[in-house]
Amino acid sequence: TSTSLLLARKIVNCKKFHLTSKLLVLDYPNNFIQSVSCQVCEHLLADPVQSPCKHLFCRTCILKCIAVLGKYCPVCRFPCGPKELLSPVKSFINVLNSLVLKCPATDCEMEVRLGEYSNHAQNHKETRMKHAYSPVNKGG
Amino acid sequence: TSTSLLLARKIVNCKKFHLTSKLLVLDYPNNFIQSVSCQVCEHLLADPVQSPCKHLFCRTCILKCIAVLGKYCPVCRFPCGPKELLSPVKSFINVLNSLVLKCPATDCEMEVRLGEYSNHAQNHKETRMKHAYSPVNKGG
Ligand SMILES: [Zn+2]
Ligand SMILES: [Zn+2]
Ligand SMILES: [Zn+2]
Ligand SMILES: [Zn+2]
Ligand SMILES: [Zn+2]
Ligand SMILES: [Zn+2]
Ligand SMILES: [Zn+2]
Ligand SMILES: [Zn+2]
Repeated sequence: TSTSLLLARKIVNCKKFHLTSKLLVLDYPNNFIQSVSCQVCEHLLADPVQSPCKHLFCRTCILKCIAVLGKYCPVCRFPCGPKELLSPVKSFINVLNSLVLKCPATDCEMEVRLGEYSNHAQNHKETRMKHAYSPVNKGG
Repeated sequence: TSTSLLLARKIVNCKKFHLTSKLLVLDYPNNFIQSVSCQVCEHLLADPVQSPCKHLFCRTCILKCIAVLGKYCPVCRFPCGPKELLSPVKSFINVLNSLVLKCPATDCEMEVRLGEYSNHAQNHKETRMKHAYSPVNKGG
């Protein structure tokens, strides 16, 4: 791993927002897990974009890297500005979205497809909001 | 790339039997192509098996390597004998089999799923056999 990639990893700071591949329910081969993970943060790809050198990143990760480290791919140093970032082929996105993971929310044991995760997580947020604004014990 | 991996590549000698990822119809990200390719021969995985260290190989490739180079994974040198080789998870096999490639046979322009390729290629063999055993010009 190059020094610039290690630096890039410190810049992105996404641990609280992204999902780890350890949540995957199935025991996939190493290289397959790498192929659905961000090359900077190593989380499961979130809103993936592809560089001209065909490396994949979460959109927020590569944009932060470019802003701080310059217009280069953090993996292979090929020139890469924000305008050169493209969406990966739909067929790859389908593979990514179909991965099944275990929801990391406390007390939620559900298995959710990655493509449905943000909708699913929305429920958890609403539940927390409700609890925050209404008395915990409504009496009776 | 390690010396033992370069040696392994010379041993397998599978160019005539395996399919190159260049036949893939869609323009996939680099790491995804690696994840569906044999870590020794770099062709599209043919009858894939998974080592205990979760690397993937064509069955014939890893068996040849083990026979010649010893009971180790050719990528990471983790101990690996023929009995430790397992089938990758079905969900990965489905991804692999669903990849669409352009049939490499002369004059065949068909796009075929990898999972259906061996059936498809059987037709080409039968056609060649027919031509071999019957006169090219049947007259009229
Ligand atoms: Zn991340
Ligand atoms: Zn990322
Ligand atoms: Zn790159
Ligand atoms: Zn949940
Ligand atoms: Zn091969
Ligand atoms: Zn192989
Ligand atoms: Zn290995
Ligand atoms: Zn054909």
